[in-house]
Amino acid sequence: MSALEAKFAKLGTDHAPGQEVRQDDALPGVALRGGPLPGVAVDFSHGDVNDTAFPPAPGALEAFIAGEHRGGAQAYTEYRGGAQVREHVARKLAAFTGRPISAAEELIITPGTQGALFLALGAAVNAGDRVAIVRPDYFANRKLVVFLGAEVVPVRLDYLACTGKAGLDLAQLKDAFKSGVRTFLFSNPNNPTGVVYSPQEITAIAELANRYGVTVIADELYSRLLYSDQTYTHICAAGIAPDKVVTILGPSKTESLSGYRLGVAFGAAHLIERAEKLQAIVSLRAPGYSQAVLSTWFDEPEGWLAERTAKHQTIRDDLLAVLRTVAGLSVRMPEAGSYLFPRLPALTLALHDFVRAVRLQANAVVTPGTEFSPDATDSIRLNFSQNHQAAVQAAQRIAQLIERYRQ
Amino acid sequence: MSALEAKFAKLGTDHAPGQEVRQDDALPGVALRGGPLPGVAVDFSHGDVNDTAFPPAPGALEAFIAGEHRGGAQAYTEYRGGAQVREHVARKLAAFTGRPISAAEELIITPGTQGALFLALGAAVNAGDRVAIVRPDYFANRKLVVFLGAEVVPVRLDYLACTGKAGLDLAQLKDAFKSGVRTFLFSNPNNPTGVVYSPQEITAIAELANRYGVTVIADELYSRLLYSDQTYTHICAAGIAPDKVVTILGPSKTESLSGYRLGVAFGAAHLIERAEKLQAIVSLRAPGYSQAVLSTWFDEPEGWLAERTAKHQTIRDDLLAVLRTVAGLSVRMPEAGSYLFPRLPALTLALHDFVRAVRLQANAVVTPGTEFSPDATDSIRLNFSQNHQAAVQAAQRIAQLIERYRQ
Repeated sequence: MSALEAKFAKLGTDHAPGQEVRQDDALPGVALRGGPLPGVAVDFSHGDVNDTAFPPAPGALEAFIAGEHRGGAQAYTEYRGGAQVREHVARKLAAFTGRPISAAEELIITPGTQGALFLALGAAVNAGDRVAIVRPDYFANRKLVVFLGAEVVPVRLDYLACTGKAGLDLAQLKDAFKSGVRTFLFSNPNNPTGVVYSPQEITAIAELANRYGVTVIADELYSRLLYSDQTYTHICAAGIAPDKVVTILGPSKTESLSGYRLGVAFGAAHLIERAEKLQAIVSLRAPGYSQAVLSTWFDEPEGWLAERTAKHQTIRDDLLAVLRTVAGLSVRMPEAGSYLFPRLPALTLALHDFVRAVRLQANAVVTPGTEFSPDATDSIRLNFSQNHQAAVQAAQRIAQLIERYRQ
Repeated sequence: MSALEAKFAKLGTDHAPGQEVRQDDALPGVALRGGPLPGVAVDFSHGDVNDTAFPPAPGALEAFIAGEHRGGAQAYTEYRGGAQVREHVARKLAAFTGRPISAAEELIITPGTQGALFLALGAAVNAGDRVAIVRPDYFANRKLVVFLGAEVVPVRLDYLACTGKAGLDLAQLKDAFKSGVRTFLFSNPNNPTGVVYSPQEITAIAELANRYGVTVIADELYSRLLYSDQTYTHICAAGIAPDKVVTILGPSKTESLSGYRLGVAFGAAHLIERAEKLQAIVSLRAPGYSQAVLSTWFDEPEGWLAERTAKHQTIRDDLLAVLRTVAGLSVRMPEAGSYLFPRLPALTLALHDFVRAVRLQANAVVTPGTEFSPDATDSIRLNFSQNHQAAVQAAQRIAQLIERYRQ
């Protein structure tokens, strides 16, 4: 195997959320038990943006059409995004995070939050570097590090063992920083568990980053969707050196605007400048007409976010109630976002086979925990941004399958 | 300077097309001669997609809106793009190129042709590899090679010295391949010169690639806009081994759909599979709703392409007539696409200062030749996909400025 083949072997997407359609339906060597459980299909690998679940935030399509009518000025923006939209977003994000943001120097608009993550990491990490990432965390994090030719230094998140904090192993993080890690990447709220880092945890990360000169890339994609007065601390406003932090955010999740491919990265000016250089050769710019949609972001109608959050919280609670009927299943209540990450009791099927059985017999798609941590061989992730009734019924079918395949 | 700083120093975008807005207007140490020449502003750094020039191909916005109405299925496609759109595009591109294309295995939809280029190169090139690229050629090519940690091996294009062929130095290409180059990247029609490779040149490239086991990445972005019965040979259908070629195309130029950020790469299945893995961590997918716009591609109304081509040809001819009045200026008539790449007579200003003088005094933006080749210190690129009258008048102003600053 060549070095390039070896690199791409580590970038497998067969079990990545959304790619299930490419899998065949054969389960060689696996004896399925019982027949299919009837019910409406639910794809828990991502949120449902249809009208029957959580449609795009109001005004998005109209803003896109207005952008198209604006013509060339909207189609051909600077690589970092059109100045006017950057100014709107910088103002809104400064108010949201409590950190002033220069629209000219400290913010770039990207093709989705995935694009922001790639650009931020590509700007900070060189081949041979050591990069600390959390386990479990967003599935692309470790792959990005591999692609950049850097080395993953894992840091444990004991999310099941605690409440009131995310559960980051700060001693392990400190050891990683002392061992020469130059970049730390983490999502807050954590994807896949939905836990939120406490103010103490965030302050500790900031202090360690300052002490050891580590650049922090904070993926805050779900930070608008906070349940029941949950406290949230933006690390960019928590005492970290301004040239050592880049924050990532976008309207794909809470606002259901994934179809427009929009995200932002903001923070250290020298990293944003590099991100723009990288964007110039990766995708030129975020889609021009789509950029106009960002003028509606953080400007939704009064009450829209509260209502959307409340609806998610109800679905969360109902799914938790279903899952907690399953003996031996452990799950922490997410404090934000729309993911559940239950740890399953011991099953007769290996994780990937169980995930296929769920697809074939329960008409539901879930993502195996191993996408988020090599250790999470007994967990599955469910994005519960779905039609309420369909999600509850699908969760009940999954609970039934767990009983079928219980050891 | 750290290794990472050094890498990004080579990825400068200050003079890249479209970034001029970030330059200040000071020209320190340069004595401008005369005052500004009045006239309508023309930005020759990219095409004008406004209604007064070359608006988007018919039906694009309607297809986008229909895509948005389709909801989640259109927002969350496979990373390589929605199956239905891939089937449409594969069928059309097979007819266009004369090479069968498997929609399932051999094609990926990307965020713009820039995205396709990055993914194809990222799939084929590893750090330390040697990559042959043409001089002059598209400005991002060398930067992509640098970002991937590979080494540029330049191959000369003697575009001014010949007619009836592009002028590639095939002996130099052969030497490059013999010296261990594993990947060859070139645009056809060539950007910035608009010359088209002859059937003999393409066959020779294919034979050399087969003989030395080199992967060829062909950027055919302008291959639909061919003037006056120009012959065009797609290298993917010219005898090259199917696992050694990836072709890149998109609707951003001829069809003026850049605002939707759409492109495709098609060819060797194992490279398309890698490209998809890379897309998963770079931008996830081409914008979902935009993908629906590709259903209109190669399906434009009868006569639309012929009319658009004829209009460009008239502008080309009128601009050439203006430029050829300038003593000492050399320019080859482009056979395709919408670029002119004149070599200027000796000036009293350095190239980048002259380009700024053009912006400040002639109200026109042109791209310095050095974006395309370090040797092209006496050339400028003009994208003539513009309002006809405004482009001719701006070219006249540029001709006047050349006289002002002639040595």
